[in-house]
Amino acid sequence: MTEFSTREWILLKRPSGLLAQDDVELRQSTITDPEPGHVVVKNQFISLDPAIRDWISENKSYLPPVPLGTPIWASVVGEVVSSNSSLFSVGDKVSGLGTWAEYSLCQEYFLLGVDESLGLPLNNFLSVVGPVGMTAYYGLLDVGKPKSGETVLVSAAAGAVGSLVGQIARIKGCRVVGLAGSEEKCRWLTEDLGFDASINYKQCDDYEAAIAEACPDGVDVYFDNVGGEILDATLMNINSHARIVFCGWISYQNALEDPLPGPWNMWQILAKSARIEGFLIHEYFTDFHKTVPIMAEWVKSGEIQFREDIVDGLENIPQAYLKLFDGSNKGKLMVRV
Amino acid sequence: MTEFSTREWILLKRPSGLLAQDDVELRQSTITDPEPGHVVVKNQFISLDPAIRDWISENKSYLPPVPLGTPIWASVVGEVVSSNSSLFSVGDKVSGLGTWAEYSLCQEYFLLGVDESLGLPLNNFLSVVGPVGMTAYYGLLDVGKPKSGETVLVSAAAGAVGSLVGQIARIKGCRVVGLAGSEEKCRWLTEDLGFDASINYKQCDDYEAAIAEACPDGVDVYFDNVGGEILDATLMNINSHARIVFCGWISYQNALEDPLPGPWNMWQILAKSARIEGFLIHEYFTDFHKTVPIMAEWVKSGEIQFREDIVDGLENIPQAYLKLFDGSNKGKLMVRV
Repeated sequence: MTEFSTREWILLKRPSGLLAQDDVELRQSTITDPEPGHVVVKNQFISLDPAIRDWISENKSYLPPVPLGTPIWASVVGEVVSSNSSLFSVGDKVSGLGTWAEYSLCQEYFLLGVDESLGLPLNNFLSVVGPVGMTAYYGLLDVGKPKSGETVLVSAAAGAVGSLVGQIARIKGCRVVGLAGSEEKCRWLTEDLGFDASINYKQCDDYEAAIAEACPDGVDVYFDNVGGEILDATLMNINSHARIVFCGWISYQNALEDPLPGPWNMWQILAKSARIEGFLIHEYFTDFHKTVPIMAEWVKSGEIQFREDIVDGLENIPQAYLKLFDGSNKGKLMVRV
Repeated sequence: MTEFSTREWILLKRPSGLLAQDDVELRQSTITDPEPGHVVVKNQFISLDPAIRDWISENKSYLPPVPLGTPIWASVVGEVVSSNSSLFSVGDKVSGLGTWAEYSLCQEYFLLGVDESLGLPLNNFLSVVGPVGMTAYYGLLDVGKPKSGETVLVSAAAGAVGSLVGQIARIKGCRVVGLAGSEEKCRWLTEDLGFDASINYKQCDDYEAAIAEACPDGVDVYFDNVGGEILDATLMNINSHARIVFCGWISYQNALEDPLPGPWNMWQILAKSARIEGFLIHEYFTDFHKTVPIMAEWVKSGEIQFREDIVDGLENIPQAYLKLFDGSNKGKLMVRV
């Protein structure tokens, strides 16, 4: 019997609002040999995502909530160090659902093999060729269905998902407009990523007018990462048969204790024969292998750029996690273990 | 020059809440020979629909608002009595966009010829083979896309659109559940129309539990005519990839002065990869001729039943119109001129 001594972040209580330091505790524990269908993964990088805020809440997600007293889930990438699975062997590099920990006990069902032949570093499998990149790809193309020449508006456009959405839309021949929270981010969108226009929403007191100006032909696809007032302002600018991709509403994520309603301008969905559609990237999990090489090619040819914000040290996770909510992370946030 | 002396209901001011008697006035006026592309229609039946409440409001619809001081629009069916159109001749029976009036000046673009060979009375062209029937048909099949064996939930199910939606869903092999506001209406749904179950929402203090009980396999398609609390309760019962057909939210229609937000359980759209989609029946106008014979066949074979609530007299329109909002109409509401 092999034992793996690990440190892991345990959920002590469900956060009210932002995650607080005393909601979690870093605890020493031991993982023994895995049961059938499971492997032990030595995590190298741990992804910090807004969705985790849902997972640790009561009853407000597509997964059952993370039980109190157990480690918090996250996307991870690392190496299999013990296997009781016919799919993965010791030494395999894998990505998938792990925990905020040095070692995670993982179900084979929630893991994918990392294709090392693509020549990309392991951390990229949590960003551009990981769930983030796949979210951008499938959310935009499969749900948003943009046509060449249409206008695609993206909120949180300098974020990990948003910046990729905009670039994929640009590759597909769309006019791309991004909303971001600083002049520096807005310049990055238009000067480096090829967005056609950007809106600094923190310097803007009339979202509706700003979107109208940046999208003179109206909005055909809105890739919505934030919800709230920007969604309402966008609804007033949508074209007939617009598609709103409901990817994640960060503005709602910290309001779970004090729920927020859907958009006030919902009637525009009727008036414009439009649609709001949710999607969950895990449903595309078994298709990732088809799309990872496409994204890898765009990365290597320079057509797609992206940023990673890598924080060192498992012990820094809770405090690093808050960067997602104050906008201070510069690219896909992850922790190097 | 021919002149048609007509009485018509003029919009004096925009209603606040329900339509009030002093928002409108019955006025005598004269219609002269039509301009090119126009005809004069002698109305035989005038349709009263919730959508009219939007049309007479400021800026809250898919059409520009009915101007103050002009007659209120409505779907009508009648006979062409004067034509300056190459599409319609004097004596043709037509249906389309007219006014609350004895005679309406109509644009040819907004009219359809009535197919008298189907052997249905003219009033049916405002109900089962008119915009109402087409709304049910295209909204359910084109937007809701139900598959045989799926569960279809319909609100305002004893209403003109809802009762047809449920029967078409039944014909397509779905389990059909309807929400209605009285025991008599609920019995009509299950005993006469072949609904599998019904919910009397006025005798129900927990919509969410009632829907769960009536839809043990969850809701795949929700045809939503009402919005509000029932939509929120339904959202808690939807299956993965559910489709919500946003047809008309009567609960919002009288709240235009005091806007209501979108659903509080909007997050379920993300959690279930579901969709809310609006649609406007006028976009299907040029396809009606394909579907009218299908509906007519179902009517003649007895597969589809429907009710019409015909009120006599142009002068009774404003008061008859209120029946839509207190639920006292028994079937598709219209006025015989």
